Amino acid sequence: MRKIINKPENFVDETMEGIICAYGDRVKLLNGDKRVLVTNYPVQKGKVGIVTAGGSGHLPVFLGYVGQGMLDGCAVGNVFASPSAQKMADMIKVCDYGSGVLCLYGNYGGDKMNFEMACELADFDDVETRTVLVCDDVCSSPKETAERRRGVAGMVYAFKIAGAAAEKMMTLDEVAAVAQKALDNTRTMGVALSPCIVPEVGKPTFSIKDDEIELGMGIHGEPGIEVRKMMTADEIAETVLAKITEDMPLNEGDEVSVMVNGLGATPLEEQLIVYRKLHELLKNQGISVYMPHIGEFATSMEMAGLSVTVIRLDEQLKELLRSPASTPFYTNANK
Amino acid sequence: MRKIINKPENFVDETMEGIICAYGDRVKLLNGDKRVLVTNYPVQKGKVGIVTAGGSGHLPVFLGYVGQGMLDGCAVGNVFASPSAQKMADMIKVCDYGSGVLCLYGNYGGDKMNFEMACELADFDDVETRTVLVCDDVCSSPKETAERRRGVAGMVYAFKIAGAAAEKMMTLDEVAAVAQKALDNTRTMGVALSPCIVPEVGKPTFSIKDDEIELGMGIHGEPGIEVRKMMTADEIAETVLAKITEDMPLNEGDEVSVMVNGLGATPLEEQLIVYRKLHELLKNQGISVYMPHIGEFATSMEMAGLSVTVIRLDEQLKELLRSPASTPFYTNANK
Repeated sequence: MRKIINKPENFVDETMEGIICAYGDRVKLLNGDKRVLVTNYPVQKGKVGIVTAGGSGHLPVFLGYVGQGMLDGCAVGNVFASPSAQKMADMIKVCDYGSGVLCLYGNYGGDKMNFEMACELADFDDVETRTVLVCDDVCSSPKETAERRRGVAGMVYAFKIAGAAAEKMMTLDEVAAVAQKALDNTRTMGVALSPCIVPEVGKPTFSIKDDEIELGMGIHGEPGIEVRKMMTADEIAETVLAKITEDMPLNEGDEVSVMVNGLGATPLEEQLIVYRKLHELLKNQGISVYMPHIGEFATSMEMAGLSVTVIRLDEQLKELLRSPASTPFYTNANK
Repeated sequence: MRKIINKPENFVDETMEGIICAYGDRVKLLNGDKRVLVTNYPVQKGKVGIVTAGGSGHLPVFLGYVGQGMLDGCAVGNVFASPSAQKMADMIKVCDYGSGVLCLYGNYGGDKMNFEMACELADFDDVETRTVLVCDDVCSSPKETAERRRGVAGMVYAFKIAGAAAEKMMTLDEVAAVAQKALDNTRTMGVALSPCIVPEVGKPTFSIKDDEIELGMGIHGEPGIEVRKMMTADEIAETVLAKITEDMPLNEGDEVSVMVNGLGATPLEEQLIVYRKLHELLKNQGISVYMPHIGEFATSMEMAGLSVTVIRLDEQLKELLRSPASTPFYTNANK
């Protein structure tokens, strides 16, 4: 197993210790719990809290986005496993600054079940919550059952936009509504070239031949929609954008942001080569790109491959996207 | 070859096209040349220009640091190959804003030869230049011949510090002196777990067994100092820090910045686990860490492994490090 780790069972705790050592000025553990991270920035009373949760192994998602202008709290479980409802509830309570908490997370069975329970627990303590699920992965279910889709890299846009809305002191319902609007206009599709290894399991999550690519692969190695012979960067860009725009048609004059997200082992050069083609294809359709995001935002440890996210923007979403944010792995210095 | 590319011979041009599509607000090609990138920010007349050059395949080094507060220009060659002296000279001339240009680059034969020629060409046009070489890789030559050492991830600190000094309108000699001071206090060591593939070559740069790690490996696959059975993250942190501090002793009360730099395929989680141990080892020696940098800063495409850089700071270097910068892959929002 080619991993730079100590004991596999300490992988998550030690990652969290590293985050605290490095970014203790911006984030802190909740009551010393190495599975719950909350912001260390001063928070204005009455601001809506934004929290998420999910399995480990996807950095910078989710822990890397706790700070100012994005998430107030994040609970994590073991690699690819949900944290407990109790930890989520503890986090929700501490992230209530008087105006309630938005739970914004990926649509996975365990996370959903535990968050629902956590919201009930929070309700006993009179903490108001709203839930917005991220279901951006177009390949994980057909359009007719889009509510079953998994949440992947598009959640980063949702964190950014909801976080900015909360900073502007919008109400809980307003923040939930703008997060939902962002997600209604967000689609993602991923392609994988190699699997990753869960440290405590010690073997690859799936197998794929050296000259093959899997389209629509999930970030935990969930099967995609098709395995093909390796494609060129341009073919990948065309295929992915076609699938996304089939699901969410774009029109001339639309403005979008595009995220090319490396899944772990895919170099920035390759991500840029794919972005180049996406940009050209969109431009040829009269669609302009605002604040593209290229890099590793939501990974699957050392998986090779990438995902493409398109979010259709209006003036409100643009303003929230460009608002300042300061977290360990997302800094936006715009004014 | 598991790469998301088109024709291998177009790898660098298409990467550059991607950069321009994505970040054309901040950077531009020099006269349409897809091997020379210059800042697109307004530059104050009389500011010292900062330029670098080197082979492609190391993003975000070097192209990703052109913008405001770091580099004004960067020329690149093919993957792992130097650009021509003429391209460097063209860049130097356009990055002279009236007070001369600092050439700040890694100590590699081709880059050095071409930059020396480029500086002569610039001199014909009355552009004053200074050169500061990055030689931070402790494993590439013994201390007695430290001037032969290769330049690796430590150059990012040098870019940041020299760039900030130039923004403060320091003179060419002053900027060169502070860059040199930064580098005199900078040491890096890398470890590799897997090779990368140069697109036009199509096969791995070296071979290493699945259960082995190479200490001191260069970012082009230059041989290291030792191949060992795979080590734990803590052992790697201890070994690397011992080698660095043997070369540059640190004292109680010293303040340093530490960069844990993923070489390409190593997850952020693993980088944070290594950082955690480095932080603990330094803390136990009474040394504090200022603005740690964890992530991919200077890569070798899809190589697995990481490097550790330690830079010893004084008040001047701290101030320059925390100064604002805005480039495609380095944003510092501090005031």
